[in-house]
Amino acid sequence: MSTKTQQTRERILTAALEQFAARGYDATTVAQIASSAGVTEMTFFRYFPAKENLLLDDPYDPLMAAAVADQPHGLDALTRVVRGVRAAWQSLPIAETGEVRERMRIAAASPALRASMARNTHATEEAIVAAVPDVDYRTARIAAAAVLAALMAALLLWAQSDDGELGEAIDSALDVLEVRRG
Amino acid sequence: MSTKTQQTRERILTAALEQFAARGYDATTVAQIASSAGVTEMTFFRYFPAKENLLLDDPYDPLMAAAVADQPHGLDALTRVVRGVRAAWQSLPIAETGEVRERMRIAAASPALRASMARNTHATEEAIVAAVPDVDYRTARIAAAAVLAALMAALLLWAQSDDGELGEAIDSALDVLEVRRG
Repeated sequence: MSTKTQQTRERILTAALEQFAARGYDATTVAQIASSAGVTEMTFFRYFPAKENLLLDDPYDPLMAAAVADQPHGLDALTRVVRGVRAAWQSLPIAETGEVRERMRIAAASPALRASMARNTHATEEAIVAAVPDVDYRTARIAAAAVLAALMAALLLWAQSDDGELGEAIDSALDVLEVRRG
Repeated sequence: MSTKTQQTRERILTAALEQFAARGYDATTVAQIASSAGVTEMTFFRYFPAKENLLLDDPYDPLMAAAVADQPHGLDALTRVVRGVRAAWQSLPIAETGEVRERMRIAAASPALRASMARNTHATEEAIVAAVPDVDYRTARIAAAAVLAALMAALLLWAQSDDGELGEAIDSALDVLEVRRG
């Protein structure tokens, strides 16, 4: 992405989060977001196919799948998924913690968005399953579902609280699944 | 529950599953179910507050919470939840495997029911969290979310297949989370 493209995308996202916070997600229109970001609706739709993509498009999904694929095959499926997800989040500069918290809060408050998130999680599950092709489908699917549910629970609890680092919340959620037995 | 009460409940449930299989869940009315079971609608509502309760009321929830509470406190949270859920399912005579499969298939096919299932899972999560009062809330919530997601993934995969024992599907899902490290 060029710098200008990236800047426009960020401007639209920031404007959207402001509008969602002010009016609520459901009551905000694409026209209002575009106008507040200083772009046309046509430009808006070049960046986001629909309003929900402002909150759902998850830049971490491909990173998680790639990092899961990088784990040693000798480990059990759950550990490979846990460590891959951990590595993906650690590789990111989490500068925009405030923005992630805002996105999670808005998503948690809208039933329509929660349903879209569930569909989204399904796609992420499948991406993780594809990243461990040597593991049988059922085992991979169950490991992916468990890790993503733990991650989602941790993110929602973190978004509802007003303090704490995002990275720490993710790490301790993954620690619950990756118990170091003595 | 008296035997007669139990029999009436079973008769309503059986009639409902037949109607759902024939017409689909959304198109079936409570009046049709009651008539097919030979009871009045008033009787129906004494047993089930709404149509969705036919599929959602989960007799295993209180059993799971009780079995989780019984696990030794010295174990980590994930292992306590995994072993409690395993013990609860093992304690049940799973005679009605066919009925559980039918319920899961119907539930998986209706978006409205899937949303209700998600709300239901939230209540089960809270019951499990309450069963480990010595564990901090966040850790307990994450462990419960992960185990229930693994269980749900396993049940849906099992329901979509035409063979395999329910008990075995549950056991192997829990094995994915309870890795015996060497």
